[in-house]
Parts: sequence; structure tokens; C-alpha cells
Amino acid sequence: MSQSRFSSNGQLRHMITELEEWLRIPSVSTDPSHDEDCAAAARWIKSQLEALGCTDASLLGSETHPVIVAHGPSAPGRPTVLVYGHYDVQPPDPVDRWMSAPFEPTERDGSLYARGATDDKGQLFAIVKAFEVLSRIRKPEVNLRFVIEGQEESGSRVLFEVLGQRGDLLQADAVLVADGPYYAPGVPTVEIGIRGLLYVELRVRTLKSDLHSGLYGGVAPNAHEALARILAQLKSPWGSIQIPGLYEGVRRPSCRELEQWSELPFDQSEFLSQELGARALAGHNSYTVHERLWALPTLDIHGIGGGFTGSGVKTVIPSEATAKLSLRLVPDQCPETVFAQLDQAVRALAPSHADVGLELLAAADPILIDREHVAFSHIDRAFREVEGRGVVFTRSGGSLPILSMLGREGAPVVLAGIGLPDDNPHAPNEKISLNQFAKGVTVFKSFFERMGSTT
Amino acid sequence: MSQSRFSSNGQLRHMITELEEWLRIPSVSTDPSHDEDCAAAARWIKSQLEALGCTDASLLGSETHPVIVAHGPSAPGRPTVLVYGHYDVQPPDPVDRWMSAPFEPTERDGSLYARGATDDKGQLFAIVKAFEVLSRIRKPEVNLRFVIEGQEESGSRVLFEVLGQRGDLLQADAVLVADGPYYAPGVPTVEIGIRGLLYVELRVRTLKSDLHSGLYGGVAPNAHEALARILAQLKSPWGSIQIPGLYEGVRRPSCRELEQWSELPFDQSEFLSQELGARALAGHNSYTVHERLWALPTLDIHGIGGGFTGSGVKTVIPSEATAKLSLRLVPDQCPETVFAQLDQAVRALAPSHADVGLELLAAADPILIDREHVAFSHIDRAFREVEGRGVVFTRSGGSLPILSMLGREGAPVVLAGIGLPDDNPHAPNEKISLNQFAKGVTVFKSFFERMGSTT
Repeated sequence: MSQSRFSSNGQLRHMITELEEWLRIPSVSTDPSHDEDCAAAARWIKSQLEALGCTDASLLGSETHPVIVAHGPSAPGRPTVLVYGHYDVQPPDPVDRWMSAPFEPTERDGSLYARGATDDKGQLFAIVKAFEVLSRIRKPEVNLRFVIEGQEESGSRVLFEVLGQRGDLLQADAVLVADGPYYAPGVPTVEIGIRGLLYVELRVRTLKSDLHSGLYGGVAPNAHEALARILAQLKSPWGSIQIPGLYEGVRRPSCRELEQWSELPFDQSEFLSQELGARALAGHNSYTVHERLWALPTLDIHGIGGGFTGSGVKTVIPSEATAKLSLRLVPDQCPETVFAQLDQAVRALAPSHADVGLELLAAADPILIDREHVAFSHIDRAFREVEGRGVVFTRSGGSLPILSMLGREGAPVVLAGIGLPDDNPHAPNEKISLNQFAKGVTVFKSFFERMGSTT
Repeated sequence: MSQSRFSSNGQLRHMITELEEWLRIPSVSTDPSHDEDCAAAARWIKSQLEALGCTDASLLGSETHPVIVAHGPSAPGRPTVLVYGHYDVQPPDPVDRWMSAPFEPTERDGSLYARGATDDKGQLFAIVKAFEVLSRIRKPEVNLRFVIEGQEESGSRVLFEVLGQRGDLLQADAVLVADGPYYAPGVPTVEIGIRGLLYVELRVRTLKSDLHSGLYGGVAPNAHEALARILAQLKSPWGSIQIPGLYEGVRRPSCRELEQWSELPFDQSEFLSQELGARALAGHNSYTVHERLWALPTLDIHGIGGGFTGSGVKTVIPSEATAKLSLRLVPDQCPETVFAQLDQAVRALAPSHADVGLELLAAADPILIDREHVAFSHIDRAFREVEGRGVVFTRSGGSLPILSMLGREGAPVVLAGIGLPDDNPHAPNEKISLNQFAKGVTVFKSFFERMGSTT
């Protein structure tokens, strides 16, 4: 255990006791019955920041899901680090699969179990406590700005509004976000890429209304059959997406990046059986798993509507079928271009008896952060002190629209999570390792010191 | 108008007034709130039969949806005709599309509009009134047995039970059913074939549980994609079903039958635009529309379950997808064989990463009736007297499990409907033409007389 890094084991113990208090507030932002809890969780972290010397802490944009903006003591002439995090959490469902109550933090085997323990209260709190440790020694020689939201799990509406009006909040020399895991235990990780998203509904119509399959089966075109034909042809059997022009927008990762990925510990049979629970991989089989997850576009069907799906038997020929589907995008693809490419592909694949339409439901740009910025060598050295090794630079397969906003003014966004791969964010038995939390406090304190010394 | 066929216009008027009384009873068998109405409709037709001399009329098998069994006066040594019909009706939904209330019979332009007007109260009542007209002249020289059920629209459970215990009820020289339309106005039609059915649920699994498409998209096999691949390959682009062995069981219609079908009036562009509301036909394009509808198997997808179909956006990779699908079968296919063929085809088409399973939900044998029986020349002559032309022998694309039961003892089942193609059974504004009703009374009376004279 790394409690020894602090002045005493008691200091870590005190931090965890405080964190437990925050974790007890069920700040589920997707559920309106928890609106008051979200507001309470916001007030709780605001008080913490005020106690640490943020005299201007304020709640912006919403009564129930406010954005907290707070500044540490001013350090004139020194760089500014913007800290982003969120106080809202995922719903705890399915509650019956938790070994202890999701909002009653419980310590087991060196970890603290609770909804929000890793995502993101626990990781954000490690940054706050790094600020505290730093402040106890002397006045920090870096300008810290905290921007903490309460809708990360439900669309970040209020934060987008606040930042839209307050572009000044984005002016910083670096953005620090701790909201993710190490690639593996002992392997500190900074994510420098996030895939984008294009989420659409595809609608296929073949008849003016549903018909009886006895009376018209054999001549009436079936909308689900037409849809299945289109969907089956959107990918080749070996996993490449068959949308003309799609791969032209894809920037290949650098050789350095690919080399680093190839050195990551990865056991494919364990990945298949433990993480996926699948018999075989799908996807573009000319590329490695890491490239497929981080640097290539994907296409997934999410669900299919129309026709009859009730219990029992109904002999209907569906006149209309819909599919929700999405593509993950990678640099330098843009959602608008890919939407047009998909639209054209779908029309070309549709049988002559089918009318097709495509509706945009959501979009996010892919992001690739320039790791040449000095902030990345600072975070690398800070982790090196604690772990005895530097960070690996990976990417994320997911999409996080707020990230483009955070980096809009040009500050490098440093995604330096301190979770572990088995932390179960968004699942039952979410946890944070106390050891990881303690390491995080040390790493972030060191990062702030190094950023402060940047000239 | 053919009222002149009766002793007076008043005689038809009286029959219609009686029919209206029966049509006012909303005997919807699929809706338990109409249980008492079903029982009332049963009692109503039982009274009618008793008034016509059926002294043994009884209600069997159910309090709410009884089967009525009744015999006309005995004619020793003469043939027996079994009359089958049903007193239950479809729900009237959508009620707001009716021009007059569905259970308030209303005459417009020579037709009587009401739910059940053609399916089947009106058509069955024409048989009952034929029996009445026949009885008024002299004691009928044919043995008539009425078997009338109240669950034709909801599975015929009680009738199957009653006939299972009372096989003697099926011993007859012919079965007469009037529950369908002419092929076209002026073209009396007898259906001699009914397609069978194999209705299944296909289940595809690729993952132990649903996964996040950001974190695993590109490597995790998607159950809906696997399902779409299977479904798309079950039919060729030109509409033939790709299940090995499937067409080997299909008996081609006779040359005589095909020739008669080719002479039927049929306007394909009107069929496309009016009946289907489609841009083009689907199905096995080497065959005519009539062959595809009546003499070839079909495969239709009815609906697809699994994954996310709610409103908005959810980025899930579905672990499981299900499809409800069915095949219509034709002589000499049998559901058991086709199930095994489909099961094998689906397993052969499934991607290597997908587990598939097939569950049987419903099955019915196809039926082809031997039209060489003398009953068919009797019905042909009876129609010829009224229409000036003989009947066309067609088939039905639908499935009617009770028919195999009715023909089980070898009696030819004569499906001789007197409806018109625009009668709207199962739809708003159901009607029966008064002219067709009057013709029906004359035809069925003549049929009974001819059957009685059979030696």
C-alpha cells in the first residue's frame, strides 16, 4: 500500500471517510426523482473546494444539475490547469447484483465499493485531494480552475450551455481529466484519441400497410426482408464496412503509436472468453484488436422495429421496418460526410421495391490529441515516480462530445485515469482501489507542481 | 336484383331483417368482454334452426363459445351434408373508420354493412335460409347436419375438442362451407386448396451479454448483424427460398388447374397499386402471381426482437436477436420435414461466432381437395343456373387448420363462398351484397336438392 506517500496512513483514511460521505448521495442524473440528490452532491463538492481556498466557487446554469466553477488561489504569471470532472453517477441497476448497497460505501479487499467510486467521484476526489496536499505545503504555484458538471451520464446539456456563454472558462494551458482506467494494473495510461459517433435510424417501406401473409405471401414485398438485405450487405463477411469512400477519411495511426499498442499486454483468448463471452471476434480481420477498437470505424446495429414481436403468432407481412444503427468514427472522418456516404450506400443496396430513408439521431466528432505538448511529458514523469514506468498512450473506442469543447481553445486535454480495468463503472459492484486512489493523489500533486514550473 | 328468385321480394326482406337481428349481437370471440354476446349469438342461431325443424339442436363444449350441433329432419337412405360455419366475428377496430356503426346493420347501395355481414353470419345465414326454402316446399330429401362454432377467429379450440370426442359428427357425404368471396363479380368460385403453415422463432446469440458499442465495437460480434446475414440468405434476390430440399416436396398444380388460373381476370398493375400499395412484386419471379399465392411455399419475416428499439439513442451491441418467421406450405409439403430443413439451413448460414436455435410456434398441414367428387359437379351446376356460368376452382393462400379436421373422414369439403372481393372481412365497413345473399339462398337450395338426388 502506498499510504506511506502521505504524511500518515491517517491522512488517507480521512480522505476516504470524506469520499464515502459524497458517495452516499445518490446523484443519478438520468432519473428525475434524484434531482435533489444531484443538487446536494454539487453543494457537497462546492463546500470542499471552498474549504480548500476556492473563494469564488459558484453553481451555474441549473438548480438541480448545476455546473460548479471554482478557482484555487491565484498564482500570477503561472500556467492554468483546468480540471474537469462530474458528480453525477449511473443508475445502480440491477441493484440485486450488488454485494453491498450501491449508496452505502463498503470497503473490501483494499477497495471501496459504491456507485460513483471510480466514475467519477473517486477519481475526481483524488485530484481535489492532490490540490489539498499541495496547498498544505505552500501556496500552489499553478492556477487551478475546477469545472465540475452533473450531467456527464445524461448528455452534459447544462455544461454545454455554460461553456457556450463563458468561453473564458476554457482558456487554460492544460485540461486534466481523471475518468478512466489504467490499461492494466501497473500500466498507467493516457488516452489521446476518442472515436466519434454517427447514430441514425434507417427506415424501409415496401407496402402502404401491413398485409396478411396467407393472402399475400409470395408476392407482397416484406419490409423486414428488404431491411435484412441492406444490413447484411453493409459489411463484408470478413468485417470491412461496405460504404463506398468510408475508409478514405481514416488516418492511419503513426508507426510509433502502433508499435506501442503492439507492446501492450493482451491475451486474446482471455479477452474473448472473459470480456466478450463470445466464440470468435468480429470486425475487420486485417487489423489488430487494438486498431479495430481505437483507430478504425465500426458499424453496429442496435435494434430493429416494425412488424410483430409480441408473444404468440401473428401472420403479418410488415409494411415498414426500422433499424437503429451507428458508426464509430476515427480521425479524420466527419459525421456529415459519413452520413451522406451511408445514405448513398443504403439507397444503392435497397431492393427496387423498397423506399428507404435515413434520420440522424446523434453525432460526435472523433478526437485525436497532440501528445507533443509538454503537459504529456509532465504527466508521464509524475506517473513514472509512482509506478516506476512511464505511461502508455492509448485511445478510447467510445465517444465523449464534451471533450472537443474542453479542448476548443487549444489546451491539450490530458485524460489520465487512475481506475483499474475491473472497476465496473456502469455495472454492479463499482469500486475504486484505495491504493490507486492514493497513487492518484501523489501523481496529480506532482503533475500540478510540474505544470506550475512550466515557463 | 334477384329477389324474383323467391316467392316475393318480401321474403328476402324478411330474411334480411332476421339477419340484422343476429348482426346486432357483437360476438367478438377474441375479446373476453364479449363472452356473453358470443353465447347470445349461439342461442340466436340455435333458435332459428329449431324453428326450421331441427329438434335435436344442442350447445356443446363451452358456456360462452359453444358449438351448435343440429340435424334437419331425417331423410333415411339419403346422403348427408355437413354444413360448417361460425357465429363469432372479428373485432370492429378501427371503429372510427366505419361509415356506420359496426353492430348497427345499415343498408346502402344494395349491400348490408355490419361486422359479420360476410364473415360469416351473412353467408352462413344464406345456407340456413336455403334449408328453410327447401323445407317449405316439402320435407328435404337430404340429411343436413349443422356444426356451427364460435371461435373461428380465435383458434377453434372448443370445436377441436368437440370433434375430437364426436368423430361421428364428421361422417357425411359432403361438407359445405360458405365463408369466402367470388374470385370476381359474376365469377363463382370454389377453393380446393389451402396452404399450410410453419411458424417459428429463430434465436441468435453472439455474446454472453449486451456490450457497449464504443468500448467493444469493431471486435464484438453483433447478434442483429448475424441474424440479418442469415435472413438475407434465406431467399435469393429473385425470390426463391434457399432452403435445400424445400421445393422437392412441392406438387405442381395440374395443367388443367394452371390453365384455368391463367384465364382468370387479373390486372397486375391494379393489384400492385390497389391491393398491395407496392412499387413492385416480390417472390419467386419464374412463376405467375396465382401460382405464387396458391401453389408455392413462401417465407415471411414477421418481426425482429432484441437490442434497443426505444426512443432516442442507446449504443448497445445486442447479444441476442430473435426473428419471428413463417413459411406457407403447399401440397405435398409437411411441416415436420420443412422444420428440419429450415433448421439445417439456418445452422449452415449462421456465422461461426453465432449460436442459433429454432423454436416451433405453430404448424398446419396444406390441404388439396379432390375435385372429382360428384359434390363439385353439383355445386358447379347450382351456380351455373344462377350465374349462367360454372365455377372456377381456385385455391387460398391462407391456412385453416379446422379444414383438415372437417375432411378427415373423407367427405369432400366444398368451399363455396358467396361474398364479393370488396366485402372487407376483418376490416372496417364489412358488408354483404343483398343480391349475392339472394343468389346464395338459391344456389345452396339447389345444391341440397342435387346432393339429395345422389345415389
